[in-house]
Amino acid sequence: MTAGPRRAVLGQNQYGKAETRVVRITREGTTHHIKDLNVSVALSGDMDDVHLTGSNANVLTTDATKNTVFAFAKEHGVASAEEFALRLARHFVTSQEPIRSARIHVEEYVWDRIEAPDAGPARHSFVRAGREARTAEVVHDGAGGEVVSGLTGLVVLNSTASEFHGYVKDRYTTLPETRDRVLATEVNARWRYAGTDVDWDAAHALAREQLLHAFAGTYSYSLQQTLYAMGARVVERLPDVEEIRLSLPNKHHFLVDLEPFGLENDNEVYHAADRPYGLIEATVLRDGAQPRIPVEPARP
Amino acid sequence: MTAGPRRAVLGQNQYGKAETRVVRITREGTTHHIKDLNVSVALSGDMDDVHLTGSNANVLTTDATKNTVFAFAKEHGVASAEEFALRLARHFVTSQEPIRSARIHVEEYVWDRIEAPDAGPARHSFVRAGREARTAEVVHDGAGGEVVSGLTGLVVLNSTASEFHGYVKDRYTTLPETRDRVLATEVNARWRYAGTDVDWDAAHALAREQLLHAFAGTYSYSLQQTLYAMGARVVERLPDVEEIRLSLPNKHHFLVDLEPFGLENDNEVYHAADRPYGLIEATVLRDGAQPRIPVEPARP
Amino acid sequence: MTAGPRRAVLGQNQYGKAETRVVRITREGTTHHIKDLNVSVALSGDMDDVHLTGSNANVLTTDATKNTVFAFAKEHGVASAEEFALRLARHFVTSQEPIRSARIHVEEYVWDRIEAPDAGPARHSFVRAGREARTAEVVHDGAGGEVVSGLTGLVVLNSTASEFHGYVKDRYTTLPETRDRVLATEVNARWRYAGTDVDWDAAHALAREQLLHAFAGTYSYSLQQTLYAMGARVVERLPDVEEIRLSLPNKHHFLVDLEPFGLENDNEVYHAADRPYGLIEATVLRDGAQPRIPVEPARP
Amino acid sequence: MTAGPRRAVLGQNQYGKAETRVVRITREGTTHHIKDLNVSVALSGDMDDVHLTGSNANVLTTDATKNTVFAFAKEHGVASAEEFALRLARHFVTSQEPIRSARIHVEEYVWDRIEAPDAGPARHSFVRAGREARTAEVVHDGAGGEVVSGLTGLVVLNSTASEFHGYVKDRYTTLPETRDRVLATEVNARWRYAGTDVDWDAAHALAREQLLHAFAGTYSYSLQQTLYAMGARVVERLPDVEEIRLSLPNKHHFLVDLEPFGLENDNEVYHAADRPYGLIEATVLRDGAQPRIPVEPARP
Repeated sequence: MTAGPRRAVLGQNQYGKAETRVVRITREGTTHHIKDLNVSVALSGDMDDVHLTGSNANVLTTDATKNTVFAFAKEHGVASAEEFALRLARHFVTSQEPIRSARIHVEEYVWDRIEAPDAGPARHSFVRAGREARTAEVVHDGAGGEVVSGLTGLVVLNSTASEFHGYVKDRYTTLPETRDRVLATEVNARWRYAGTDVDWDAAHALAREQLLHAFAGTYSYSLQQTLYAMGARVVERLPDVEEIRLSLPNKHHFLVDLEPFGLENDNEVYHAADRPYGLIEATVLRDGAQPRIPVEPARP
Repeated sequence: MTAGPRRAVLGQNQYGKAETRVVRITREGTTHHIKDLNVSVALSGDMDDVHLTGSNANVLTTDATKNTVFAFAKEHGVASAEEFALRLARHFVTSQEPIRSARIHVEEYVWDRIEAPDAGPARHSFVRAGREARTAEVVHDGAGGEVVSGLTGLVVLNSTASEFHGYVKDRYTTLPETRDRVLATEVNARWRYAGTDVDWDAAHALAREQLLHAFAGTYSYSLQQTLYAMGARVVERLPDVEEIRLSLPNKHHFLVDLEPFGLENDNEVYHAADRPYGLIEATVLRDGAQPRIPVEPARP
Repeated sequence: MTAGPRRAVLGQNQYGKAETRVVRITREGTTHHIKDLNVSVALSGDMDDVHLTGSNANVLTTDATKNTVFAFAKEHGVASAEEFALRLARHFVTSQEPIRSARIHVEEYVWDRIEAPDAGPARHSFVRAGREARTAEVVHDGAGGEVVSGLTGLVVLNSTASEFHGYVKDRYTTLPETRDRVLATEVNARWRYAGTDVDWDAAHALAREQLLHAFAGTYSYSLQQTLYAMGARVVERLPDVEEIRLSLPNKHHFLVDLEPFGLENDNEVYHAADRPYGLIEATVLRDGAQPRIPVEPARP
Repeated sequence: MTAGPRRAVLGQNQYGKAETRVVRITREGTTHHIKDLNVSVALSGDMDDVHLTGSNANVLTTDATKNTVFAFAKEHGVASAEEFALRLARHFVTSQEPIRSARIHVEEYVWDRIEAPDAGPARHSFVRAGREARTAEVVHDGAGGEVVSGLTGLVVLNSTASEFHGYVKDRYTTLPETRDRVLATEVNARWRYAGTDVDWDAAHALAREQLLHAFAGTYSYSLQQTLYAMGARVVERLPDVEEIRLSLPNKHHFLVDLEPFGLENDNEVYHAADRPYGLIEATVLRDGAQPRIPVEPARP
């Protein structure tokens, strides 16, 4: 092959501090509230010099972006992950000339209260809830910010009401068709809002509820069908949501063959497998909306 | 140093299949129940030959121990992790001459029901609950089985009611004393029952509740004190429990210094650190009981 | 905000089996060769029906894609990760009418031989080498395949020859400037080839070597500068490479303050921190090339 | 069952800072040397008060134990993981009255040099070697210290020279016998020395080499046999070693059934499975030695 010019040039670039673990406690008398976030900052802009010559004249240090996260948690509090990310993103693009775009990613861990009979009237004890994390991503280009909310690690299972048949049979197909299987997945979802005038906590709770309801309420002939039902439900019930991207690993539960032991397995005993796993991914859009949530590269 | 004899001899040994992931579905009309277990088997006995000569004449394959887990899930169901582990352990030591001791370790993952309005009357949809796992360990030596129940990954936090001062000051001590700090840990607990005539689910729920209540209800001057309060509470409230071993990493939440930014930090903004972490471990015994839960080796 | 139409539509979608762990042994007399791959398949095409109605008529099962990986390892062998991925991708887009695009992702784990004096002339013993994985991604749209090779988990460290100063000082900047620091990172790199007429193994080895040499040979004033030097070196030395994307976490090594103990720390004792970490990401292109490697979303 | 007394008492307890990540750079002209350790400290002694009343009068803070790790790295250097652990353990039990026993656990990560042609004469660039970690554990009770060295994560594979047959067939046995299989494991080994007058680096290298040679050189009829050969070899070749404990997960490589595709699989294509896995554990002792390395509890 004929090689192109030998000269290299700089393309897209971004930098910042990833995974600042900030915990914000708010005291309301003897009742405490807690917000537990993992905040990542990525900044882009006029950064040719630092790459090409090592001059840091345009570089806000990643250490300073970390400090900003902590300071903002004090100065402005954390009303919600989305609101906090919007404020941070706006700050970076408006306060530093060379910075043209800021991307903030927040992972939020939820805590429940411990209700202890002899803990007295004070309420400052918490227990981590669930395996899932709530996510919020904001991209701000100076003109305005765009918000993508989401969740990861929400593991769900239907022990019936799932069939799988009628598929293509090629030379390498050996899978038997089934009229009753376990369908399980770990929901990883990201949905984009049309604007920022949103009650973030209420919208997130509603989206999560729709995902669960659609998963449980769909009689499924394929995980793709279930995925679409889940995504469509969020688009239909949340008028502010323009699109949703779902990544659903098919957590295979294989019926164990008990015949060698003289036992019948009437959909009772399953082996929960690790790898490989099916991986079903799709975007569901409001009719007319443009897709803007990036498509994942192939995995892992 | 003078070397001893050059001859090697076999010491303690055990083998089996680890981490068989069995899911048991039970159908009660259109209402389904789920038990989700990770079962590990370790067998000991007359196993010199296989080590010294490679003869497998005394060896039940680890594959067969895995099959037994699946078959027993069908034949006997899974009433509880402890009952299931006891049955498996008894089977191995009584059915195979060369096997003298069986250790079963079960990790159980809990699922909640999804209550979906349009899912109809059927109840077969579940969502994984919490980050923690319930554990059950049974050691059976042929004469009888001993049960150690437990839990891992229960993360708790008090945002106040924790002080730390009055400690030794050596040449390497720089930590400032504090009258108000966040105290957070991930509870890893194992408690041993005196017998096997126990309502395992009720006992586990009660022990978990006592751990939470003692954590929340203890005004703490050190994590050791909180640990002891948690362990003592379980021993005092569960008459069947002989001892409990607690391993509590001190999940440090450091108050962030905001002074450089002209801000006061009145116990509001914390950095949740990863490593290093304090690690506090102790056994609490019923007076007169013998400690039998092994002490962890140094970490990690 | 005024909501758009309530109707949902399907956007980009893909599916397949992820993480098929195939190991291919080739026997050359008593000398064995091993290829150890983790293969993920993602297919796109005419898949509206399965999402909207649950009809699987166009669906090749993910189970069949897994079988294909195993069968191809037998039928065609594994000359290299790239060649294997190209062959798989071409198969899926050309053999199944509804499939318009196939993305194959391969992670390869490298093994070294164990040279044992008393193992005899046979050579069939291996030990896993290194922490890093070699990666290969192929996207095939029916017309042709595009190859992106890479590596993950290559951890490198310079114990000097790194300075950091002259950066922006805003209200939240407290980091002291330094003329001598440890610079460490975990190299995650992906580079795209102009064509497919490439000696994949030689090219990969050369790219890896350039990355190491550029890291070691660059006197650094910022990790961005080092990143660019690494990327540019690959573009300049490998004429087939059109672009390279680098994602470099700054694995901070903080100089420990030993003054409280009456000790000087002359760049001798460091604390290797976990989180947060700087994250520096950029694409380096051959002049005139179009960027086609996707930009990572914000982390984590 | 009749309950025992309601009173709880304190049993074995230990505390300290876990996972202090210390990196020690030593400069020899322009050639640098690196030691990269993860150090965990566990102290025991007269600690009733802190558990029962919260009094910290006998408590050396875990923060001070961390500081000691950093300070000792400066004051005494890190000749080897074992020497460093011995020195730390001795310090804690001799400098603090209430401390009766100290356990130090060190995990060491090895780095290779990067040999870069244009890096000049300076040698300060490193790349992390291998997946394994070297371990050293010291227990010191005031009278003297005992050293257990080891390694984790050493993954090895024989692609032939392994058979498995002649085992017990019970009702649950379905595994077909085989005369040629892949045998793979991840070596986790800990060996105890008779004394402390040892060339730690040389002994560790020799032990590691013996483990590899015995694995590669043993024609195997069971993983137990291979395990014993590995352990015995270390005992026989290292006169200072009193015992060795090996924990060997059987990393199953299952021959893929290619018959449905009209293909023969002549030990060429394997599926590398994750879970479940066989787990083989045993101690090998020098004849006459007492076993002192603790036996692992059942897994996981």
